[in-house]
Amino acid sequence: MGVRRIGLLTAGGDCPGLNALIRAVVLAALERRWDVLGIEDATHGLVDLEYHRPLGNHWLTLDDVEDILARGGTILGTSNKSDPFHYVVERDGQRVEMDVSDRVMENYRALGLDGMVWVGGDGSMRIADRMADKGMQVVGVPKTIDLDLGGTDYTFGFHTAVETITAAVDRLQDTAESHDRVMIVEVMGRNAGFLALHGALAGGAHICLIPEVPYRIEPILAKIRDRCRAGLPYSIAIVAEGAAPAGGEPSYAGPRALGEMPKLLGAGARLAAALEPHLDLDTRVTVLGHVQRGGSPNQFDRILATRFGVAAVEAIERGDFRKMVSLRTPDIVTVPIADAIAKPRRVERESTLLHAARSVGIEIGE
Amino acid sequence: MGVRRIGLLTAGGDCPGLNALIRAVVLAALERRWDVLGIEDATHGLVDLEYHRPLGNHWLTLDDVEDILARGGTILGTSNKSDPFHYVVERDGQRVEMDVSDRVMENYRALGLDGMVWVGGDGSMRIADRMADKGMQVVGVPKTIDLDLGGTDYTFGFHTAVETITAAVDRLQDTAESHDRVMIVEVMGRNAGFLALHGALAGGAHICLIPEVPYRIEPILAKIRDRCRAGLPYSIAIVAEGAAPAGGEPSYAGPRALGEMPKLLGAGARLAAALEPHLDLDTRVTVLGHVQRGGSPNQFDRILATRFGVAAVEAIERGDFRKMVSLRTPDIVTVPIADAIAKPRRVERESTLLHAARSVGIEIGE
Amino acid sequence: MGVRRIGLLTAGGDCPGLNALIRAVVLAALERRWDVLGIEDATHGLVDLEYHRPLGNHWLTLDDVEDILARGGTILGTSNKSDPFHYVVERDGQRVEMDVSDRVMENYRALGLDGMVWVGGDGSMRIADRMADKGMQVVGVPKTIDLDLGGTDYTFGFHTAVETITAAVDRLQDTAESHDRVMIVEVMGRNAGFLALHGALAGGAHICLIPEVPYRIEPILAKIRDRCRAGLPYSIAIVAEGAAPAGGEPSYAGPRALGEMPKLLGAGARLAAALEPHLDLDTRVTVLGHVQRGGSPNQFDRILATRFGVAAVEAIERGDFRKMVSLRTPDIVTVPIADAIAKPRRVERESTLLHAARSVGIEIGE
Amino acid sequence: MGVRRIGLLTAGGDCPGLNALIRAVVLAALERRWDVLGIEDATHGLVDLEYHRPLGNHWLTLDDVEDILARGGTILGTSNKSDPFHYVVERDGQRVEMDVSDRVMENYRALGLDGMVWVGGDGSMRIADRMADKGMQVVGVPKTIDLDLGGTDYTFGFHTAVETITAAVDRLQDTAESHDRVMIVEVMGRNAGFLALHGALAGGAHICLIPEVPYRIEPILAKIRDRCRAGLPYSIAIVAEGAAPAGGEPSYAGPRALGEMPKLLGAGARLAAALEPHLDLDTRVTVLGHVQRGGSPNQFDRILATRFGVAAVEAIERGDFRKMVSLRTPDIVTVPIADAIAKPRRVERESTLLHAARSVGIEIGE
Repeated sequence: MGVRRIGLLTAGGDCPGLNALIRAVVLAALERRWDVLGIEDATHGLVDLEYHRPLGNHWLTLDDVEDILARGGTILGTSNKSDPFHYVVERDGQRVEMDVSDRVMENYRALGLDGMVWVGGDGSMRIADRMADKGMQVVGVPKTIDLDLGGTDYTFGFHTAVETITAAVDRLQDTAESHDRVMIVEVMGRNAGFLALHGALAGGAHICLIPEVPYRIEPILAKIRDRCRAGLPYSIAIVAEGAAPAGGEPSYAGPRALGEMPKLLGAGARLAAALEPHLDLDTRVTVLGHVQRGGSPNQFDRILATRFGVAAVEAIERGDFRKMVSLRTPDIVTVPIADAIAKPRRVERESTLLHAARSVGIEIGE
Repeated sequence: MGVRRIGLLTAGGDCPGLNALIRAVVLAALERRWDVLGIEDATHGLVDLEYHRPLGNHWLTLDDVEDILARGGTILGTSNKSDPFHYVVERDGQRVEMDVSDRVMENYRALGLDGMVWVGGDGSMRIADRMADKGMQVVGVPKTIDLDLGGTDYTFGFHTAVETITAAVDRLQDTAESHDRVMIVEVMGRNAGFLALHGALAGGAHICLIPEVPYRIEPILAKIRDRCRAGLPYSIAIVAEGAAPAGGEPSYAGPRALGEMPKLLGAGARLAAALEPHLDLDTRVTVLGHVQRGGSPNQFDRILATRFGVAAVEAIERGDFRKMVSLRTPDIVTVPIADAIAKPRRVERESTLLHAARSVGIEIGE
Repeated sequence: MGVRRIGLLTAGGDCPGLNALIRAVVLAALERRWDVLGIEDATHGLVDLEYHRPLGNHWLTLDDVEDILARGGTILGTSNKSDPFHYVVERDGQRVEMDVSDRVMENYRALGLDGMVWVGGDGSMRIADRMADKGMQVVGVPKTIDLDLGGTDYTFGFHTAVETITAAVDRLQDTAESHDRVMIVEVMGRNAGFLALHGALAGGAHICLIPEVPYRIEPILAKIRDRCRAGLPYSIAIVAEGAAPAGGEPSYAGPRALGEMPKLLGAGARLAAALEPHLDLDTRVTVLGHVQRGGSPNQFDRILATRFGVAAVEAIERGDFRKMVSLRTPDIVTVPIADAIAKPRRVERESTLLHAARSVGIEIGE
Repeated sequence: MGVRRIGLLTAGGDCPGLNALIRAVVLAALERRWDVLGIEDATHGLVDLEYHRPLGNHWLTLDDVEDILARGGTILGTSNKSDPFHYVVERDGQRVEMDVSDRVMENYRALGLDGMVWVGGDGSMRIADRMADKGMQVVGVPKTIDLDLGGTDYTFGFHTAVETITAAVDRLQDTAESHDRVMIVEVMGRNAGFLALHGALAGGAHICLIPEVPYRIEPILAKIRDRCRAGLPYSIAIVAEGAAPAGGEPSYAGPRALGEMPKLLGAGARLAAALEPHLDLDTRVTVLGHVQRGGSPNQFDRILATRFGVAAVEAIERGDFRKMVSLRTPDIVTVPIADAIAKPRRVERESTLLHAARSVGIEIGE
């Protein structure tokens, strides 16, 4: 008695390639004459089968996916706030947190699903793993724009985001060279600096600050001044949103302590404020924000998402549950979800990537 | 006794297409067996013939321009601070402002120049016009990224900048649709809203705030809420950096007056702060900054810059001085510099562009 | 008794911006509480109201157009073979041509349409004009990728196509410079050379062959050899598909007459075959083909299409029929359809664009 | 007695990322106070120290590489015809092939080089290996646009080329959907189908023909007809230039045998000619050609090339000669050149990539 129906949901922040994945899951499943239920807005559609905003859960057809390979976003919608173990509902005008995981299991069974493709990041994989405890036949697909999830060489969306950052830095190179400027680009990465580091390497930035390496102002100023002395009176700095000065305290005597900066100022503006008193050059800040999460996925991410989708269907076919599909270049494999979430992924101090960045002269601020 | 030598300088903020223009001037001049002196860093190279940072003035060859058509920036460098009538020099450790325009004329004559191609915006055209009073045989080329200069249908760089903005908005559309969000994009335009308005039309934004139209919060909130009611719980707002609330005062009762926001916060962050107390949706801000000034010029700007360059050389050839080259679609003509600077260019309240924006439902905030 | 229902059809080859236009027509019409019937596959849906492949005619909603501004193609479908005055039907296994224009008028009336937005090129505007003779209240929207239609400064799609060509030439510049090569790029333009000429100017090509100027091989060879002598042993040629040698005869003594080349070889391959016997350099041919018709419209084309859409609705509103909307920079106006089709548009020998191309050294082959 | 001087040459067809590699070699070498001699036009500059076209060999400075990270091509030039073991010289008006490898070694020693970074493909690695036999201290860097070289997960340039192909297919999707068409895209790949296969997966093509799998017409026709029956009367086929029908003979009874097609027709046009007699749909051919070799390298290729450059310098530093740098994701390692060239790399019939392509319905023609 094989598989006949599977569910598919996309959770967490969106990223380029989700639609390519959905398409591949549907194509590979229909080939096997399975039905695929697209769950709306992450787990919301599983918590409440009547949920619809605007579509509701629906059985996905060839027509639904014919045209979505190249499109950003996710046709299923997504959500950051749908953890069934801590589900927030409105009750008597107040927000209350509940555990609705049993209701999710009931609905899963009521729908007659023989498996579930659960797409999400670190937090979502933890939830999927706990749902497996309750009997859900789940296969995870890793999704994180900033690569802070272990167990796979890459996730889809990452390379597209780096491309977006690189395109911005390329543009700044033009205008920086024509003027005397310090250009600061704030990029995503609250805990992991992969996006910043790849963007700095690809864009040829001169300074790169990441969450894993608390920075000091002095080496940054030294880098900028060295470049000035070499006849290059401009510098470009990439700053991850989670980058912070060493010790949480400013290591310089400026007119304003870093810690006093209002919360509304991002890491880029805080760096600008810290540098300006010490420099003769103008500083300019670019904040890329959610631009990094959108756009048509590049070819790498489309192919990776497509392969992940096919692999997830095949994992369900052979009953390889509680696993996460994973890229072990050049192969797609499965790994236990538990392994993938055992340890958050960060830029290692000894990583060859950090080493390469320093070898081409990028100042990391430490 | 024709022309034998001309000078060429690029002043003000840089923008895509400057190199295409330089190339065209050189190609058209060499064809006539003229020499072209590239002046370094706007007028700095004319004030001080020994100036060089890093190159100094130099006679431009075919080789110098063979490879620059598609490149952003300017191989001549540029400057925002080189007005010869208010030239800032260091004297006894203090910054002093001087009129060095006579020295510029001396140098112009000493170099044996028979004409000067002066590329710049509103302020630069004023300076060029005053240099013409002193006898310089000057032809102006309009350059402004935000189209705040009259006398020409378009300037090069503008369309490339709109493309950059549009690409960012396209990306936000993907991620906005997948979540419940108000996405705010802050774009250039201190006094003129052309970039914001074109970006909003091309990107399909729902709200567009420009300097020419002081905005009120209520219609913006109404637009966002209308969309929510229509099952579209996301909105995208483009905000020019010079956009400001009507009356300089916030028209709403929020926890924080707009006027109290620290200067460091741009127009986008100020709008976010004003909206957030009234909305259930998250807001996210993207600040494009100087990214808008860089990048390879798009085809429109390359062609326009090339045609401007050829036209500037031809204007010098026929002695048509104190004029600015100008696009009167589909022709390139010359207009008196005086006419171009008579009145700053702004988005007119009655403009067909503003009308088109409102016709497709874009809320202008008033 | 105002307008209540209008029809909308897109005819001829597709081009970027059609969906932006459809969106604008629908937004502006719904604002007026009109209904808009999207006619399927050009006039096919008007000839046969039961026609559907795959959708059939349908009343367009906000939802239909919410997400299409940035997408290439046309959600209505299109066709090159749907002239109602020469409509081809299958009868007894044979293809017969019929005049079905009266049936089209009957259907137009049966649908209760008060106006029709007819989007198409030269041929389509002729048909629309003849339908107006029969009483259809038609407003034309010009659509031609290669700008071979008069009456308007630009049509949407053109600038996107030039951008596509320019991107290809940029890439060839990289590889041409690294080797000794003649790179040939064949672009669209059977009768008009605007795409080729704009692409050559924007891409910095060295040779540009267009239908309006029959070419000779000698000046082309001379250009290539001059560049070799100047230490630039590579050249890039843009060739419109309709470009042909002067006199229809090869003007050189090669091993193979141009006329003998099989029909399957395009203008690019024919030029390569003609050049190769005379050169020591390798030649390489790129044929862009329909790649030029696709892609997300660039910002210029999205804005132009949006403004055309709004203007078409307004023209219907004020009863300004038998007109075509038109860009007279910076305004959108209407012109009699008859004027627009009176004379096909071509690159004029005296045009300032051709002049600019020659001024920067582009060899036109004559 | 450490390293003081190294040489660097780029051989074979060019590809995006060569300049990024050159930059990284120079930055990492200057950091060690080594000098780097850039050899002009592959081995030409080593065969003849006086060779210069246009630059000649030169010691590379920071200034030479400051601005090249993002640029296509190679500032050193390259050549396909510079094998020192089969070097072609003109003698008495005739082309004669000579072995000049000893002269190359002499020059290498005369220049006082302590190591050589040799960048190239399969053929170049063979040559480098033979030069090592003669005593050259060589480190290879793999460079092949179509991935037909073993020993490394990826080479730089490949992903950029796939992106170029994908962008073209995306554009064709727009126009194919609007009409009834078979769109054929001919891509590079004489012996290896990686580019075609990646492009087909990323672009969502329906048919993909590669050199490793001789194709038959019937399954291709069946795929096209199946799609028509499903209401999708358009198909997109990617064809590698080396794809050929099974048995070298056409497997269908058309008006023209495939084998009779003139040589000038590429694989794409030959497929079109083979399909057309059997289909009611129009076919259109795009030939991307050398467009695939150019363009700014994407971020993946810039980072990979940068890491290869750093790794090559480090290999020389530790005396790890006769090795090739290689990506073993996520690390950069060295492998014996002999291993890399032992067996040409091809798409394996059992490869997971081919499997994924078939799983999403791509017809491979067999």
